[in-house]
Amino acid sequence: MSQPTKSQNAPQTAIQPTRAQNYAEWYQQVVRAADLAENSPVRGCMVIKPWGYSLWENMQRVLDRMFKQTGHKNAYFPLFIPLSFLEKEAQHVEGFAKECAVVTHHRLQAGIKRDGKPGLIPAGELDEPLVVRPTSETIIGASFAKWVQSYRDLPLLINQWANVVRWEMRTRLFLRTTEFLWQEGHTAHATEAEAQEETRKMLDVYADFAENWMAMPVVKGRKTEGERFPGAVETLSIEAMMQDRKALQGGTSHFLGQNFAKASEIKFLDQAGILQHAWTTSWGVSTRLIGALLMTHADDDGMVVPPRLAPTHVVILPILPKPECAAVVMEACEKLAARLREVSYVGGTLEVEVDRRDLRGGDKMWSWVKKGAPLRVEIGPRDLEQGVVSVSRRDRGVKERTAMSADALVAGVVSLLDEMQQSMFAKAKAHEVANTRSIDDPKEFRAFFTALKPESEGVPTEIHGGFALSRFAMDPMEESKLKDELGVTVRCIPLDGQDDPGQCILSGKPAKRRVVFAKAY
Amino acid sequence: MSQPTKSQNAPQTAIQPTRAQNYAEWYQQVVRAADLAENSPVRGCMVIKPWGYSLWENMQRVLDRMFKQTGHKNAYFPLFIPLSFLEKEAQHVEGFAKECAVVTHHRLQAGIKRDGKPGLIPAGELDEPLVVRPTSETIIGASFAKWVQSYRDLPLLINQWANVVRWEMRTRLFLRTTEFLWQEGHTAHATEAEAQEETRKMLDVYADFAENWMAMPVVKGRKTEGERFPGAVETLSIEAMMQDRKALQGGTSHFLGQNFAKASEIKFLDQAGILQHAWTTSWGVSTRLIGALLMTHADDDGMVVPPRLAPTHVVILPILPKPECAAVVMEACEKLAARLREVSYVGGTLEVEVDRRDLRGGDKMWSWVKKGAPLRVEIGPRDLEQGVVSVSRRDRGVKERTAMSADALVAGVVSLLDEMQQSMFAKAKAHEVANTRSIDDPKEFRAFFTALKPESEGVPTEIHGGFALSRFAMDPMEESKLKDELGVTVRCIPLDGQDDPGQCILSGKPAKRRVVFAKAY
Repeated sequence: MSQPTKSQNAPQTAIQPTRAQNYAEWYQQVVRAADLAENSPVRGCMVIKPWGYSLWENMQRVLDRMFKQTGHKNAYFPLFIPLSFLEKEAQHVEGFAKECAVVTHHRLQAGIKRDGKPGLIPAGELDEPLVVRPTSETIIGASFAKWVQSYRDLPLLINQWANVVRWEMRTRLFLRTTEFLWQEGHTAHATEAEAQEETRKMLDVYADFAENWMAMPVVKGRKTEGERFPGAVETLSIEAMMQDRKALQGGTSHFLGQNFAKASEIKFLDQAGILQHAWTTSWGVSTRLIGALLMTHADDDGMVVPPRLAPTHVVILPILPKPECAAVVMEACEKLAARLREVSYVGGTLEVEVDRRDLRGGDKMWSWVKKGAPLRVEIGPRDLEQGVVSVSRRDRGVKERTAMSADALVAGVVSLLDEMQQSMFAKAKAHEVANTRSIDDPKEFRAFFTALKPESEGVPTEIHGGFALSRFAMDPMEESKLKDELGVTVRCIPLDGQDDPGQCILSGKPAKRRVVFAKAY
Repeated sequence: MSQPTKSQNAPQTAIQPTRAQNYAEWYQQVVRAADLAENSPVRGCMVIKPWGYSLWENMQRVLDRMFKQTGHKNAYFPLFIPLSFLEKEAQHVEGFAKECAVVTHHRLQAGIKRDGKPGLIPAGELDEPLVVRPTSETIIGASFAKWVQSYRDLPLLINQWANVVRWEMRTRLFLRTTEFLWQEGHTAHATEAEAQEETRKMLDVYADFAENWMAMPVVKGRKTEGERFPGAVETLSIEAMMQDRKALQGGTSHFLGQNFAKASEIKFLDQAGILQHAWTTSWGVSTRLIGALLMTHADDDGMVVPPRLAPTHVVILPILPKPECAAVVMEACEKLAARLREVSYVGGTLEVEVDRRDLRGGDKMWSWVKKGAPLRVEIGPRDLEQGVVSVSRRDRGVKERTAMSADALVAGVVSLLDEMQQSMFAKAKAHEVANTRSIDDPKEFRAFFTALKPESEGVPTEIHGGFALSRFAMDPMEESKLKDELGVTVRCIPLDGQDDPGQCILSGKPAKRRVVFAKAY
């Protein structure tokens, strides 16, 4: 083995800046340090790097299983949508036609480019431009119209894993990118009640996934009119509080009524032989969840991945102070890895990596800290003499190590991971609870959101900013004004809330319920 | 349960026309009858329906495992490629820029359309048009150039599962579509030998997958200059013989030399500290394999899915002649299903479906015949009295049934599926062998390919058409002439062939090796 060298990619330092110094920049630096993704040469499009993509693969695997268990089947529909399809639903085209990628030509030929230089220029103009799908209600609706004839064909429960494109002017890796990966469920039902039940059921699936796999607590709720999906009758969402106390919409589930069924002519003969329009839903989550995962759990040392979604659960780091002990240390590492790989965990077996890279020990250790692998196990000659290994939990301080026998680790690794998973959820939940406040006084409401100065004052000890639970009379004009003034919106009307009549925090008019107000991603 | 009705979707008939009557039309009809895919309203793009998509999911799962076992990691790169990137490699742009989807605008606004009517028209013209990826060498090369600095960063072994677009004028479901799904592997290596080894290794992975999972025998070989991937130094492929004796290229693996590394500036410091260009490869298979699967195994009754790739291994069909026996029959069906679902098979457990649909028994049975589910199990009151179930293999005649006890089925189901898998491979192999001929006489060669009249004469008993193993002097002009005259091309120069000098079948000039000549998809 050649002399270890210091890697340029994995310096032995924490993330700079810290969350308290500059949260937005900290986010970008964690994405970079954890090797999750990078900007591409194509404006607004990202490259999802292997560690980031494996998080998405794990999310996909779990969600896909949940979708199939609830009776959905996967299919695949075209990337391109004829412009005329998008125009079918008035509100929908209004919402989605504004910023999208438009294919106008199907050939390139030699010519003079716009910059005056010779090169390839578009040729073969299409009769009708094609839009790269921003979402697929209209193109999937065209298939559903063919597939659905009778009540026997319903419910039709379809999901698609796909890439979509929404031309974005200001992008941030994972949180808002021109192209992103997602799943979109599309279902058709014989009755309104069934479609509403589906809308709610899939929201519950998302909440289950967020809380029990991502360890990210969420509030389930209804969107106000202004925040609804274009063309939907009702939009439900899960909202999570990030560490900077802003809300992030993690997934949405839309009850579309008969709007899209009418636009796409999805009709069926009911049991009485009468032709009816179907009732449809759609629901989706995207690679945005990776950004949510980061902002829920990462710390000033880098990413922290909840064990149940970790691509590598345990990384084994051989400590090799002298070449002569390399063989025996490596053998102990591989032996432990083999034993751990036989341990069952969340429907599979543990993913274990022995880091054999030709790097300094500190660099290796830090690279895994930054990636957020749940458990690091160091094994060196001294450990072997004492019959122990050194175990470090990613959710604890970087320097914290626990010495235990290999047997104890193998026997206890699953409870350790389970405890970490629960502890990560509990920590995130405590953060949400600590930064959620019922506010009835308009002055206090204003102060709550304006006192937020996380970038200049370090991590604040007092609550300012977060989720305000305040009454709202559902006036869209008031909501719009609030957004302009404070950058605050109604995130949702909580599903588990109860009527609690009083004065609207914005207008003073009578209001029935409290809603969640927050700044949001 | 209401009165069973005859379904419009699953008439009790075999496929019309048969293979012998009209092979091309038979293909389309099997795709339709098996519910694999359908044409979409977008020219050249297909909708992959749930049963077809689940075949792709199974292929993905197996291939993905093979890629990971050979050290590859998945990542994701942008859908769009700036025109200037495509222009970087001269041959590559020549091969791919001709017919592709070009994004020229990023907005739609109200205006007058080309047909003179008011509506949405493209706006926000891009400074540089973007091409929807036809393949990703150039955009992935841009990332590799950043990721590779030192020999320590090599080999870099990446795979991407993605959609790609190549504007096609004549399309056929799965075989040639404007948009298709595929995986594209992209790797960078420090030495030419390593890159060549990778190229060969991935070809072997594809051949392993084709033969041992798809039950589709393949010939591994090198492409001639004219059939190479644009920009590649060498292209390897697997070629399979379809039932009409045409060849289908099932997968390709390209040794790209330093061509793309130079175009994208993928450079590294070698161990001696000298800056070198990397050596790269790329390799891919696509949803085309579903067409290959169909044309290898389907028969005049519909699709036949090899057990190892089947989405449903066993379908249980309750026979309910009288309503009063429904409960006891259904209970027996569910009990058997539960037992079968516990049986281990190819890395998971058996997928078993009890078909409870409200359809006539014959329609149900035929719908599964057409989908090609490997085993059908009928259970009726008479079977229950006799303590048996009726088992039908999809690779045997539709009316063939074997009575056996449920215990015997559960105990023997895996060997039955294994036997089917082997028998399907053996049958396809026998077909390939029977229709492959060493030909040295130019007249015989011409007759071999011109006597092919499968559409008018029924399934022929004599060999005419197929793979001709003939010597070729590698003259691209001769190959091009042959293609124009007979529609025959060199499919590959077999890797396991040996030198066998003689006269070129086309030019009479000295030639070293035999190659595979065939008509092809």
